[in-house]
Order: sequence, then structure tokens, then C-alpha cells
Amino acid sequence: MPTEINPFLGCRAIRFCLERPDIFKVQLRAILRVSALGNVRIMFPMISGLSELRQAKEILETCKVELREEGIPFKEDIELGIMIEVPSAALVAEALAREVSFFSIGTNDLIQYTIAVDRVNERIAHLYEPTHPAILRLIEMTVAAAHAQGIWVGVCGEMAGEITLTPLLLALGVDELSVSAGLVPRVKRAVQSLDTKECSRLLEETRGLASATDILGRCEEVAREHYAELLS
Amino acid sequence: MPTEINPFLGCRAIRFCLERPDIFKVQLRAILRVSALGNVRIMFPMISGLSELRQAKEILETCKVELREEGIPFKEDIELGIMIEVPSAALVAEALAREVSFFSIGTNDLIQYTIAVDRVNERIAHLYEPTHPAILRLIEMTVAAAHAQGIWVGVCGEMAGEITLTPLLLALGVDELSVSAGLVPRVKRAVQSLDTKECSRLLEETRGLASATDILGRCEEVAREHYAELLS
Repeated sequence: MPTEINPFLGCRAIRFCLERPDIFKVQLRAILRVSALGNVRIMFPMISGLSELRQAKEILETCKVELREEGIPFKEDIELGIMIEVPSAALVAEALAREVSFFSIGTNDLIQYTIAVDRVNERIAHLYEPTHPAILRLIEMTVAAAHAQGIWVGVCGEMAGEITLTPLLLALGVDELSVSAGLVPRVKRAVQSLDTKECSRLLEETRGLASATDILGRCEEVAREHYAELLS
Repeated sequence: MPTEINPFLGCRAIRFCLERPDIFKVQLRAILRVSALGNVRIMFPMISGLSELRQAKEILETCKVELREEGIPFKEDIELGIMIEVPSAALVAEALAREVSFFSIGTNDLIQYTIAVDRVNERIAHLYEPTHPAILRLIEMTVAAAHAQGIWVGVCGEMAGEITLTPLLLALGVDELSVSAGLVPRVKRAVQSLDTKECSRLLEETRGLASATDILGRCEEVAREHYAELLS
């Protein structure tokens, strides 16, 4: 891979796949073939808008046609979703929701691009704030667009496993939290300890708060109230 | 300056100023001092949210206090504005609008961050689209927030000087276009050739379009109709 001046704003993920359909097709064919054997879904990363999604879907369709012609079995109605991790995708989520079966909000990248902060860069890491009101707004827009089309929304990235934020994510209407295996019991306990009404009240309160720190503070209060034992 | 892995997502502009208030203060004092002599305003670049703006404003206040104590004249009510170029700023524009006298939308960076594309990177430059519906939405949100607080919004960056897009920017409610001196006559002629109603109609039409190319195509039609002679 050639070196890029700003690799995080560079030719990554679906961009690379669309630049190199020869490599992309090998991956898609592999996923399709294994879909005949078990529970498999497809998710395109780094989608920035509708035209990129349509290009990727077209290549997927080509792979399906080829497999059919070759008589190789695959799940015809394999579920297709996209990552919502580029801010523009969250902003046009209404159009994207009509074309896929699910969304997964990739919070690490979404925060990074929305606040324009490389979180690996220690000099500015303090600006990387998951509870920045701009992030909550993008999550809310994404969920609203998805639910209007009857599709579900997951959250992945560190935010999903951070149980201080669980009340907020539930209130925002997120349907699934994707976390590493070791965190599952903790997140499950947190979810089970909360009730929907109180989460909604928390969300309403945060709407009046313009500071990420204040919003985080309110989340911590709710979390402590309900599952202090998990927070240590 | 130390090297950064992703300089565009790094310690730039207001981030550097807040990291080095010693350097920032010298600049602010200079602007304040010259404000006694002529038409000068202050604009903070790369603001990502309210806390950053407040920190910068605090340093500005310190400079004012110091100048007063030293008996050095400056314009007490010097206008203060911010660039809206980080997506999070556009998304929390309502809160920011209460704290400043004007906004200037920096389209080059706003597009770059919103679509997560380094436009200097040729491999992905095709993704850099000023008419991406996500960009139009952010501009619209910014203008709405500003006008609700009675402050004005400018647009700078290449988009402001691109006369194909003038009808769209007018329809979005932008109050000022900031362009390089050589472009002023062309942009002026374009603005004078348009009428508000037709611009609004164009904007309504683009709402139904999910593709940046289609939106650009409609803008080109309107521009050709009204000032084909300027487009060559």
C-alpha cells in the first residue's frame, strides 16, 4: 500500500474495495459461499453516501450472478448492512436506510471524524469525547432514519462496551450493542438494571447540556445509582 | 512542530493556540491593538464545540484586561466569530451561535471531515463532493442556528467562489460569500442574476435527490440559464 499523508482520511475499507474489485470480489464470494453453511451477514465499512453503497451492492450482485452460474450454493437473501462511521453517512441515513437491512454505528471512527481528532494523537486526545452533543445527535439521526424504514441499528466501538454510557445508548434507541466477548456479562447486567423510562428522562436532561463533560457526569450518576457494583 | 500521523486530524489552529496560550496571546493582543485603528474582527478557526470556544474567549478576555491595565487602546466591542469547519461545530451550532457575533463556514475542511476524505489524496479525490447532501444539510443547520440567534453566516473556501453553486448557497440562506479578490466580479454578477424564489425552488428540488452528481447537475442548469456567459 502506498503511504498517505492522512491515512485516516485516505483509501481505506470500502474505498480500497471499490478501487480493487478483484480483491473485493474474492472476499464477497467467500462470504457468500460460507452463507450456505451458517449464520452470516455482510456489512460494508466506511460508506460515505449512496453512490458508494450502490457501487458496492452492484459488485455483490455480480458475485451472486457468477456463483449461480457456477452452481455454487449461497444464501440468496443474505442480510446486507453498512457501518455508519463517516459523518456524511449519518447525515444521509434516511436515503441509506432504504437500501440495506441494518446499520452498525462505528463510534470510534464516527467520533474521530466528527470532531476531526485522531484519538491516537496524545496532544489532542482530550477532544475525543463520546458524549459530545454532536455525536449524540448523529446517533439519534441514524436511529430515527433506520427505525423509520423498519431496520435495526447496532453500536460497535468502545462506546458500546462502556457501561457508563449504556443508559444513553438505550435512550437513543439503539437496538444492539456489539462488544468484545469478555464484556458481554457486564453490559448485559447493566442493560438489565435499567428501565426505559428513566433512560428517556436522562436523554431529555442531556438535551439541555452543551458540554460533553456535563453529559458524561449525568450518565455516571445514573449508572452509579443502578449498578455501582459493576463500575469499579 | 512534531510530526503527526494524521496532521489534518491533529493539533492545528485553535488546538495549537490553546496548547500554547503564550503564542496565542501575542496574536490576540496584536489584533486588539490594531482594532483601535480600523475595521478588524476576530475569528477562531477549527472550533469543535462549546468548551473550546469558551477557553479561547477566556484568553481573549485576559488580553483585554491586560491591555486596559496597560492603558493601550483597543475596540472594546470588537466582533468575535468562529469558523464552522469541524462537523461537530455545525451539529452544535445552536449552542455556539449564542456566544459569537458571526459564523464563517469553512467548506474545504468541512467537506473533508464530513466525508472523511483528504482531498489532496488523488486516490480518493472523487469522493470530495461539495454537493453531497450531507454537506448541504450541515450548511442548512448552521444557517438556521445562526439566524435563530440573529447572527450572520459567511461561506469561505472554494465552494464560495464556485458560481455554479451560488444559487444553492443563496437558497441555503448564506449571508456572505468570501472569495479571493479576482473572483469578486464574477460572483457578484452571478448573485445579481439570480432571484430568490428560483433559488428556493432549486433547493426544494435537491431535497429529493440523494446523489451529489444529480444535485450538481441541477445547479449547473440554473447557472447556465442565468449566466451562461460567466461559466466558460
